[in-house]
Amino acid sequence: MSSCSSELTPLLGGAANSSAAADYICNQFTDAGFAIDTTYLLFSAYLVFAMQLGFAMLCAGSVRAKNTMNIMLTNVLDAAAGGLFYYLFGFAFAFGGPSNGFIGKHFFGLKEVPQSNFDYSNFLYQWAFAIAAAGITSGSIAERTQFVAYLIYSAFLTGFVYPIVSHWFWSGDGWAAAGRNPGESLLFKSGVIDFAGSGVVHMVGGIAGLWGALIEGPRIGRFDHTGRSVALRGHSATLVVLGTFLLWFGWYGFNPGSFNVIFKTYGPSGSIHGQWSAVGRTAVTTTLAGCTAALTTLFGKRLQTGHWNAVDVCNGLLGGFAAITSGCSVVDPWAAIICGFVSAWVLIGLNKLAATLKFDDPLEAAQLHGGCGAWGIIFTALFAREKYVNEVYQGRPGRPYGLFMGGGGRLLAAHVIQILVILGWVSCTMGPLFFALHKLGLLRISAEDEMAGMDLTRHGGFAYVYHDEDSSAHDGGGGFMLKSAAARVEPRPTPATTNQV
Amino acid sequence: MSSCSSELTPLLGGAANSSAAADYICNQFTDAGFAIDTTYLLFSAYLVFAMQLGFAMLCAGSVRAKNTMNIMLTNVLDAAAGGLFYYLFGFAFAFGGPSNGFIGKHFFGLKEVPQSNFDYSNFLYQWAFAIAAAGITSGSIAERTQFVAYLIYSAFLTGFVYPIVSHWFWSGDGWAAAGRNPGESLLFKSGVIDFAGSGVVHMVGGIAGLWGALIEGPRIGRFDHTGRSVALRGHSATLVVLGTFLLWFGWYGFNPGSFNVIFKTYGPSGSIHGQWSAVGRTAVTTTLAGCTAALTTLFGKRLQTGHWNAVDVCNGLLGGFAAITSGCSVVDPWAAIICGFVSAWVLIGLNKLAATLKFDDPLEAAQLHGGCGAWGIIFTALFAREKYVNEVYQGRPGRPYGLFMGGGGRLLAAHVIQILVILGWVSCTMGPLFFALHKLGLLRISAEDEMAGMDLTRHGGFAYVYHDEDSSAHDGGGGFMLKSAAARVEPRPTPATTNQV
Amino acid sequence: MSSCSSELTPLLGGAANSSAAADYICNQFTDAGFAIDTTYLLFSAYLVFAMQLGFAMLCAGSVRAKNTMNIMLTNVLDAAAGGLFYYLFGFAFAFGGPSNGFIGKHFFGLKEVPQSNFDYSNFLYQWAFAIAAAGITSGSIAERTQFVAYLIYSAFLTGFVYPIVSHWFWSGDGWAAAGRNPGESLLFKSGVIDFAGSGVVHMVGGIAGLWGALIEGPRIGRFDHTGRSVALRGHSATLVVLGTFLLWFGWYGFNPGSFNVIFKTYGPSGSIHGQWSAVGRTAVTTTLAGCTAALTTLFGKRLQTGHWNAVDVCNGLLGGFAAITSGCSVVDPWAAIICGFVSAWVLIGLNKLAATLKFDDPLEAAQLHGGCGAWGIIFTALFAREKYVNEVYQGRPGRPYGLFMGGGGRLLAAHVIQILVILGWVSCTMGPLFFALHKLGLLRISAEDEMAGMDLTRHGGFAYVYHDEDSSAHDGGGGFMLKSAAARVEPRPTPATTNQV
Repeated sequence: MSSCSSELTPLLGGAANSSAAADYICNQFTDAGFAIDTTYLLFSAYLVFAMQLGFAMLCAGSVRAKNTMNIMLTNVLDAAAGGLFYYLFGFAFAFGGPSNGFIGKHFFGLKEVPQSNFDYSNFLYQWAFAIAAAGITSGSIAERTQFVAYLIYSAFLTGFVYPIVSHWFWSGDGWAAAGRNPGESLLFKSGVIDFAGSGVVHMVGGIAGLWGALIEGPRIGRFDHTGRSVALRGHSATLVVLGTFLLWFGWYGFNPGSFNVIFKTYGPSGSIHGQWSAVGRTAVTTTLAGCTAALTTLFGKRLQTGHWNAVDVCNGLLGGFAAITSGCSVVDPWAAIICGFVSAWVLIGLNKLAATLKFDDPLEAAQLHGGCGAWGIIFTALFAREKYVNEVYQGRPGRPYGLFMGGGGRLLAAHVIQILVILGWVSCTMGPLFFALHKLGLLRISAEDEMAGMDLTRHGGFAYVYHDEDSSAHDGGGGFMLKSAAARVEPRPTPATTNQV
Repeated sequence: MSSCSSELTPLLGGAANSSAAADYICNQFTDAGFAIDTTYLLFSAYLVFAMQLGFAMLCAGSVRAKNTMNIMLTNVLDAAAGGLFYYLFGFAFAFGGPSNGFIGKHFFGLKEVPQSNFDYSNFLYQWAFAIAAAGITSGSIAERTQFVAYLIYSAFLTGFVYPIVSHWFWSGDGWAAAGRNPGESLLFKSGVIDFAGSGVVHMVGGIAGLWGALIEGPRIGRFDHTGRSVALRGHSATLVVLGTFLLWFGWYGFNPGSFNVIFKTYGPSGSIHGQWSAVGRTAVTTTLAGCTAALTTLFGKRLQTGHWNAVDVCNGLLGGFAAITSGCSVVDPWAAIICGFVSAWVLIGLNKLAATLKFDDPLEAAQLHGGCGAWGIIFTALFAREKYVNEVYQGRPGRPYGLFMGGGGRLLAAHVIQILVILGWVSCTMGPLFFALHKLGLLRISAEDEMAGMDLTRHGGFAYVYHDEDSSAHDGGGGFMLKSAAARVEPRPTPATTNQV
Repeated sequence: MSSCSSELTPLLGGAANSSAAADYICNQFTDAGFAIDTTYLLFSAYLVFAMQLGFAMLCAGSVRAKNTMNIMLTNVLDAAAGGLFYYLFGFAFAFGGPSNGFIGKHFFGLKEVPQSNFDYSNFLYQWAFAIAAAGITSGSIAERTQFVAYLIYSAFLTGFVYPIVSHWFWSGDGWAAAGRNPGESLLFKSGVIDFAGSGVVHMVGGIAGLWGALIEGPRIGRFDHTGRSVALRGHSATLVVLGTFLLWFGWYGFNPGSFNVIFKTYGPSGSIHGQWSAVGRTAVTTTLAGCTAALTTLFGKRLQTGHWNAVDVCNGLLGGFAAITSGCSVVDPWAAIICGFVSAWVLIGLNKLAATLKFDDPLEAAQLHGGCGAWGIIFTALFAREKYVNEVYQGRPGRPYGLFMGGGGRLLAAHVIQILVILGWVSCTMGPLFFALHKLGLLRISAEDEMAGMDLTRHGGFAYVYHDEDSSAHDGGGGFMLKSAAARVEPRPTPATTNQV
């Protein structure tokens, strides 16, 4: 008998069958809840999926034109291969409870789904998260990585490394989860509040990218013979802005959507105080953190470089989002502004450091998702508000909250552990993998291929053909028209009878 | 008195006015249902509408730069003209019941709307489907069709040909509908399960395109003088990927949205078993079919051509979606993987066949939507699961289901009929139309215009101007800059006083 | 005690505690309402936010390539700066009731939020509207405005000018609001029905742009020495179409979303007649107005110019949307067709007039949003239907409606007042601001910078680099390849050690 029924039955005591009446009414509310929450979760999942398009466009615009096909194909395959692997075992490793604190063990191939807490919509939502992590990493190693290496690390990351981390922090069984099942002890009596995954998604993707980029080394020409940093500009700022806005759009699925359900009261029924309001507040904190980071970056970079750089503003914005993702549901809007402000300087500082250390990450992905993500984890431990923490993570009265809000240091301790554990786990899995690929000669493409670009050498041609051969032939050679690079140099590996679009 | 009221009244028997109390409570649930379902359907409609943007970008990227304006304009006009025609009579032909099995006869100009089963949101959702069909066809005949021919066939297709087909298979009156009104006999006691339209939308659009492309013949240069296939590469792989992801995004409105309502129980109230769960499962089967098709295409084409082709992967992915669209709601996730796997080979095979037969479809639309759509219809008849069929199409106990699932051959028989009927109907309507346009000299543009590109000759200029005349004039002629083709050759048909953007 | 409880209690009279039972049940419906309506409003807000991406792409495509970075950066900053300003005081000025008719005075920094009528989701939705207004204006003054001027006017517009206008017409306290709080008198016993903001958003943005463009004067080369209009074509029609479709997509959040709540009955509970149906109808009227305007523009411009212009069709479409935005919820679908038809001619006429008067607005924003917006306000006053007006703006029986529908002239009088007041208010605030910036030398860039393009001079480089230096160096100088303008001429204002993407 649901709590709704047990509460309603005595109230209807005089009815012919008060218990059945209460059940009847309450079951209808349960149905309405399923319908509302599934609608909410699925459309949130679709938004998170749209981030994959955002990544594809952001990455495409940030690399040189000659590698556009390559990077976009990796983004399509993140989603496609991720779909299969996450269906077969990733979702099971992550959420297949009841299990232990380390790894899940049910739901392989969606067996035993649906059940009351795990419906197909939960799988779809989590899949969209899993592919985001791999997308982050592909940015770090762009423009110089063999396609087969990409396929291998991507499968390993979305199918194993990432699901394990999400089990630890998000599953009811996870050893460090703030929302651990009742009766299980919490890490430092607190657990880790990584609400939408500054650590679980962004740091995982960023640290994987860090190791990949470190082991591969910088792109040819990225640092000149005197060691000075040379900007290898992406080929389209328009695509960067398009991708950034799509990621912003999708982040409204990522952060507010992480509540999973919206039809849930906080305290007595019938008032504005419920999860719906917390969902809205989460959308607001997310927005404000990104906005502040963008403005801070605009003026910060203006002081540094003397111009107003659109691409830097986009990256600053995304860094603010990556940072707020951890604490978005448990901090106040004013705190989100602090989060975004600091996040911008974290990214600026790490980019300076990367240039000094001759570390080359074409998308700044390690700095942005790894660095700002780590800042976000600390930020949450400082600014999480007592009331929100108790509403979002119910059933553990007196639990710790943000240090600066008077909640003591236990949340901070847990969050430091989170950073170290993610750093360790990803380094110990992805690091050896990238190193092995490197030793086997499977990681980096040849210098010749890198100069020519991967689209010509691996993907059958240049991504753009702004003028076709016919009309340039008609041009008589006199005009200075763009001749298709593809038409001129493409070493077509197969007979022309192939039907290509 | 609703079933809710009649069930609740005796339970509340002791209340002052148990019948009125039950009515009161149940009516509120009805209201909640309208609010939830309308929200669900409208946002699904918006997603399906986003597919039109996806088509526009996919088509634009798949044609040569000189025809970009032309193809994009057709996509905008599909939506715009489709809006008027579908409002005036298309929706009436399709869903205007009560009527007969062949054609609807109410709701012209949305008269008599809203009523309990047909609200404005239903119209909007169906309109978004109608314009998708015309969008498919425009791909097949791209780069060589007169604009006026486009306007004529598009109006005929969205206003008449497509609505009739949707009436047959989706209307409660339709002679072949699996969800036909109670009391009406089902085709082979089964009816056709074309849940979201592998046949109704994709085959219709694809076969119309087949006839258009056949009658027009291939683009100039598509096959060389020895008859070998020459790839006429699209001008932007970035746009192809953008369009593909947008179509993927929109397909979550197309397939799961086809339930129309999400607040509906399967069996007793108060459990996870309801339409919400079927909606989620449909999103999952859709995802897995596309993912599998993409991966299969990746490796299949790698074996064939030696490179990893991003554009082929995109088309393979879309073929998987077109195939699963028919059975997405009634098959298991594992079956969706089979669907996608076969779909990839269907597309690869049909593309081979098309090249052999010198059939030129710039978007592979006839092969993809027609061929993979037909496969999807067969697939559904093989793999539809009993339980799901009975949940999604209620009220006909013992109805047939998939042949391989032990459900006998009647569903398959109905589905073979569907393929033949769609093939026949579209061929007998669109075929003669295209032929008449051809005979009247209204179908294909002149060879000269085709070489120059339609944007210059019909649409007022090239779609891209990456460098304006001013700065290239300042260039002194020494640099090898891209001069705008438009600036150089555009035969501006009107005085320059026109205020163009 | 809610009306639900007071009605249900006597019906449950025989129950043990009928009042508590009714409260219990009714509170659950209240909760469901919060969950449904918040889901509805938040996803609508996300769609409206997507319009900012649409604006960015539309603007980018409509300017010359050399100013792409500049215009996109303004669009990103509209959203970012708007987020902070609207949080700090904009939302308070607009909706901070109880206050007076002129300006709100609560909710600064979201203090006192949430309360039953103002939750975080309301803020997010209104923020997305506020940034749209500034985006409109940025189009009018594109390609010649100093970035610092942009930052100043944008802050002033979104933080003060726009919120005041929205207070007048949309707040419960607003002196001219049709939905003014009970007990307060309505302007002409009617108030202004500007449902989603043809006036509040579009005219405000358009008139601000009008003054900016007037004071700055036309771009260099826009009118030749004989005074003839010379089209300065935007650099990418693809981006224009992308932006237009995204705006269309987002308009489904803008117009239907303006209901804010969807779970509300019209009359007795339990029927199709509720806000859900009005929401759907609003989506339909919006669609039909845009479709009609697009088709009218297609044929109208064909007659005028002899070609089928895709960009003009896009602008015509958007003009139709800007016009229907005011009356979308209170007119019939057939009336929306009239709205769109006239709107197309308004835009064509105003563009002619602008060319005659040598007024240069690169996006046609003043004509489109100002002109079509004003037409929409008049249209609503002519065609608003009695039934719909009384459903959407409840509690004032016998209120005026459309003149042509028999509702008298009072609504028209109120709407004429709206146009005059917006014209006056925006002119008296933004006009002096632009003039002061002009006098201070902060408004327009130098002629030299304008010729070179703002991306090179202010934003660190050209937006596109289709071929990098490496491979063109390998080219030997013989081929006619596009050399990156950035690589050749960029006067990099900072040392190359900056880490740029």
